[in-house]
Amino acid sequence: MTAPIAAIILAAGKGTRMKSDTHKVLHPIAGRPMLLHLIDSVKALGAAREVVVVGAGREQVEAVVTPLGAETAHQAEQLGTGHAVLQAKTALAGFEGDVLILYGDVPLVTTATMRRMVERLHGPDSPAVVVLGFRPADPGAYGRLIVASGDRLSKIVEYKDASPEERAVTLCNSGLMAVRGADLFALLDRVTSDNAAGEYYLTDIVGLANGDGRVAAVIETGATEVAGVNSRGELAALEAEWQQARRARAMVEGATLIAPETVWFAHDTVLGRDVTIEPNVVFGPGVTVADGVTLRAFSHIEGATIASGATVGPFARLRPGAVLEADSHVGNFVELKNAVLGKGAKANHLTYLGDASVGAGANIGAGTITCNYNGFLKRKTVIGEGAFIGSNSALVAPVAIGDGAIIGAGSVITRDVEPDALAVTRPETLKKQGWATTFRATMKARKAAK
Amino acid sequence: MTAPIAAIILAAGKGTRMKSDTHKVLHPIAGRPMLLHLIDSVKALGAAREVVVVGAGREQVEAVVTPLGAETAHQAEQLGTGHAVLQAKTALAGFEGDVLILYGDVPLVTTATMRRMVERLHGPDSPAVVVLGFRPADPGAYGRLIVASGDRLSKIVEYKDASPEERAVTLCNSGLMAVRGADLFALLDRVTSDNAAGEYYLTDIVGLANGDGRVAAVIETGATEVAGVNSRGELAALEAEWQQARRARAMVEGATLIAPETVWFAHDTVLGRDVTIEPNVVFGPGVTVADGVTLRAFSHIEGATIASGATVGPFARLRPGAVLEADSHVGNFVELKNAVLGKGAKANHLTYLGDASVGAGANIGAGTITCNYNGFLKRKTVIGEGAFIGSNSALVAPVAIGDGAIIGAGSVITRDVEPDALAVTRPETLKKQGWATTFRATMKARKAAK
Amino acid sequence: MTAPIAAIILAAGKGTRMKSDTHKVLHPIAGRPMLLHLIDSVKALGAAREVVVVGAGREQVEAVVTPLGAETAHQAEQLGTGHAVLQAKTALAGFEGDVLILYGDVPLVTTATMRRMVERLHGPDSPAVVVLGFRPADPGAYGRLIVASGDRLSKIVEYKDASPEERAVTLCNSGLMAVRGADLFALLDRVTSDNAAGEYYLTDIVGLANGDGRVAAVIETGATEVAGVNSRGELAALEAEWQQARRARAMVEGATLIAPETVWFAHDTVLGRDVTIEPNVVFGPGVTVADGVTLRAFSHIEGATIASGATVGPFARLRPGAVLEADSHVGNFVELKNAVLGKGAKANHLTYLGDASVGAGANIGAGTITCNYNGFLKRKTVIGEGAFIGSNSALVAPVAIGDGAIIGAGSVITRDVEPDALAVTRPETLKKQGWATTFRATMKARKAAK
Repeated sequence: MTAPIAAIILAAGKGTRMKSDTHKVLHPIAGRPMLLHLIDSVKALGAAREVVVVGAGREQVEAVVTPLGAETAHQAEQLGTGHAVLQAKTALAGFEGDVLILYGDVPLVTTATMRRMVERLHGPDSPAVVVLGFRPADPGAYGRLIVASGDRLSKIVEYKDASPEERAVTLCNSGLMAVRGADLFALLDRVTSDNAAGEYYLTDIVGLANGDGRVAAVIETGATEVAGVNSRGELAALEAEWQQARRARAMVEGATLIAPETVWFAHDTVLGRDVTIEPNVVFGPGVTVADGVTLRAFSHIEGATIASGATVGPFARLRPGAVLEADSHVGNFVELKNAVLGKGAKANHLTYLGDASVGAGANIGAGTITCNYNGFLKRKTVIGEGAFIGSNSALVAPVAIGDGAIIGAGSVITRDVEPDALAVTRPETLKKQGWATTFRATMKARKAAK
Repeated sequence: MTAPIAAIILAAGKGTRMKSDTHKVLHPIAGRPMLLHLIDSVKALGAAREVVVVGAGREQVEAVVTPLGAETAHQAEQLGTGHAVLQAKTALAGFEGDVLILYGDVPLVTTATMRRMVERLHGPDSPAVVVLGFRPADPGAYGRLIVASGDRLSKIVEYKDASPEERAVTLCNSGLMAVRGADLFALLDRVTSDNAAGEYYLTDIVGLANGDGRVAAVIETGATEVAGVNSRGELAALEAEWQQARRARAMVEGATLIAPETVWFAHDTVLGRDVTIEPNVVFGPGVTVADGVTLRAFSHIEGATIASGATVGPFARLRPGAVLEADSHVGNFVELKNAVLGKGAKANHLTYLGDASVGAGANIGAGTITCNYNGFLKRKTVIGEGAFIGSNSALVAPVAIGDGAIIGAGSVITRDVEPDALAVTRPETLKKQGWATTFRATMKARKAAK
Repeated sequence: MTAPIAAIILAAGKGTRMKSDTHKVLHPIAGRPMLLHLIDSVKALGAAREVVVVGAGREQVEAVVTPLGAETAHQAEQLGTGHAVLQAKTALAGFEGDVLILYGDVPLVTTATMRRMVERLHGPDSPAVVVLGFRPADPGAYGRLIVASGDRLSKIVEYKDASPEERAVTLCNSGLMAVRGADLFALLDRVTSDNAAGEYYLTDIVGLANGDGRVAAVIETGATEVAGVNSRGELAALEAEWQQARRARAMVEGATLIAPETVWFAHDTVLGRDVTIEPNVVFGPGVTVADGVTLRAFSHIEGATIASGATVGPFARLRPGAVLEADSHVGNFVELKNAVLGKGAKANHLTYLGDASVGAGANIGAGTITCNYNGFLKRKTVIGEGAFIGSNSALVAPVAIGDGAIIGAGSVITRDVEPDALAVTRPETLKKQGWATTFRATMKARKAAK
């Protein structure tokens, strides 16, 4: 039971129905390419090896999986699933252990199910092959798993070849298998393309194993887990399944979601207890939310760390590097990027804080803009504790506003301001009495003249 | 039939599954704590007395219900529902009338149903007890109501104690009851804890009443009305039920909701006729919307009064004290707080109006900010009728802009401006020909040098 | 089979249940009055004539349909559907061809179905009348189509007049018909109001035709297509059906909709391939989106043309006349109206661009406002290629910023700036050391004194 595990992940299919220049298995669910959801689950199983079988668009797939330590094997021609798996033979030469056969476009199979499959290989009758079955709401044209008795699989039959009795079987073939490494390639080498399609079918190894007097066993799981993606509609359906499960978990763990169906999590969102999420909040990757945080409606949050008691939104945008310390407030039409908002500090209206740090208790007035970019460099704005930035001010980085300093409304600050100082730029007011009356008369006359 | 009514509301349960520091019955639905939805309905019934039985977290509950005139009774130990109700005995000493037994976590039972329950007490056979039953889609492990004939209840049987025939009954026990005050505590005093759990069950009073030759009767209602909240998932489900009913009512009354499922009402939202609500509008408490108003997508509205013909959004935020007079416009990325926008006035882009009044027909340019806060005080901005505030202006309160006055774009206005005057602050322009070419060359060289 | 086609569209009903001052058939679906969806489909069929029968609110309907070349006929009294159709007799005097009878509040019947109806008129047995039937989930009180054999209709029976056997029939009457022009008015002239309601029923022509030895035939379609709108709830339901179908088509054609149920299309939205649409995007009319565009969450887009590789949002508002050239970026809290953003140009934060053109590669800093309106005229801002507009600047139109020019942060620019020049308005900074300390002390003392 402690044999090493290798996963062979088939990802050579073109995914024509996606109508996309992006490889099918790289389309994301919850902000992460679907293939990586699968590799995450394989890694959680403790697999020693991952071999991704690639074909069309292999460069795209390799660019994503190679950095994660997965190998690739190239299937130059599409000659069937048996042929696809066989391409991993060279990569796994000398590998002694159990092999899981997975599909890059069936991304949500869980680690627990994978473990059950592999463990079954070492259970009663020492099966050569374990096949994962499921019972869809509508079995339709899926291949059927014909079970002899208990969990012993007598054959896998394609729908088109099935008898009426076989079609009445509701247990269907997901295509996922676990096979002992010692058996897999030996069985595959005996598979032929002697069929109508001229393809090498992976499913044929069940018959070969049975013919050898070996056992094939079935493990059953739910339909959602083995749902595949062949179109953008199916991608959206799987995203919806993922989100629904994640929302349920958030609530179980102690977050209030007023309208769960309007909250979109990323694959790695972390939520504390007594977090309240109003309708319409979207998480990108890399967000951690501590206890007692309120995320108000229409907030968009990615790469942000939010400490306890903070309030965000409505209409807030937190971008990567946003750090909200305890009890800080980010209000409407406010964007933070690579910016720290100190304990209890507030940026409540129409503000952009980029490449900035704001001290505890500081107040950032409405319409404040940190001018962090000069077209070439991003530069930093530092605002001290308890500072008060008057509304509609522009802080031209690099610039530091001292602790307790006050900036007058409407100022453009280009030089550092000392602690507890006042700084203000305020041109003289020009006034012309009655000018508006004259102006309106002129304008109306001009319009009338047209 | 005109006996006074007292409601005993059980709210002593901890609500552990909520995983919250907030008491379960204080979690809100439509922006109002669920317990208060129930108390609202009890008050609409004209109840003379409300006694809330509290336990863990009693301070939180008392802080909310005491100001409403409800009493509390303390259940120090959790010894069952019968014991809980009995805690109200002292509070109701001397009360002569009918008693409703309700649950703080079953918040959506209607006044009409409560009335039917109480009225049945005074109907045929003068029942001692009226039990509210319902037929859930899946009766599951609910207690069953065993009816002898007509509406006469012979017993309430726990699922675990029920025979197969009893389990086949689909009428279930909601736990809600009406009991004559003269009977209630006398019956409860006879309930024992002589059962496996060692608890005092409220349901035992049915058997005791029947044993006395008295009648117990059943009133039936829909499952949604008696749905309870034990987890955040159930809270979200009840919020969804509430919202769905409210949306349907809005449409029946003459509002167009383009995507009803994306509009979230508060408990007290008031809508006129021929109101159009685009997708994704969130109401907080205290909103009144008159006839013919258009609320565009992505608007967040609380504590606001909107007169006929006004247009709001998309991306507008109206906060408490926002008053939109007839035919006024609030556009995108605009926030109003404690601010009146006069008849036909416009604030269409990127504006913050706080503690302000804007006269009829005034035009507030893009990027206008009222600087209403100096870190200590909130001060007022008054803008006259027909005034024109140029874009990107800061109005530093306290300040008054006269009727018909014009403020030049980009100004910072700190003093009052007379009617029909022009006021503008505009520093001289410094220009350096060719400077940008030099700057770019320097920057590129610096980058190359790295 | 190439007989000309006329459509008679009944739209005289008041629509009382809508509780609206707007005529029922003018309430929009996907941003277009429902009646015009129907007329669009009739025009796609190549109909030679369209006659809309109007009654209450006829002015509203005429104002919409007359510009499209449709005629109207007035039904002064509501004397039944047969009477309504008869009002088109004068308008169609001399018309020789086939007549479709449609309903303004049954807007989603497709051109294909209309074609099937008309074609059947010229098929076997040359029917005088073709009736469109459907099978609703719940046949309820719909009139039933009693079929003799094949597609031959023996009668239409009202539910209230139907026998139990007839009520068991699941094929219902949609009310839509195709009739040969030569027969229609002759049959209608023979319809009487000799019934309980005293109305002239269109359905009576089936019995009259059969009595003449002529054939009435049935064409069947899906229930959604013939769903009618009598209340705002039904309007919302039909909007939902329309949107769901449109979303599915978008995905089939190669767009990724992460949360399809949160994307609202307009009737004329055009999408390219590999477009990604995040949750909560609302389209108004007149939008074209090219390949490879990303529309981020919370975007509101109308009348805009978006070229390939552009990115929009989150929280972006594109209004009519917005043109985004290839690879341009519009970011959060940014509004474009009648403005071109050149190839690769960026306007990423808190900006209003109105009546403007921005050259390729230009960078518009956060908080930039084009001051395009002086209360009377809208004037233009031209920004050159590669220009850099510093944050929080106001550009007072009419004004031109030359190619490669740089505007300093916080400037108010009222005059043209030459190519590659720097322009900046920056008043002197006034500084008072320690002023903030004194100010705070004063304010605290004042508060304490209260």
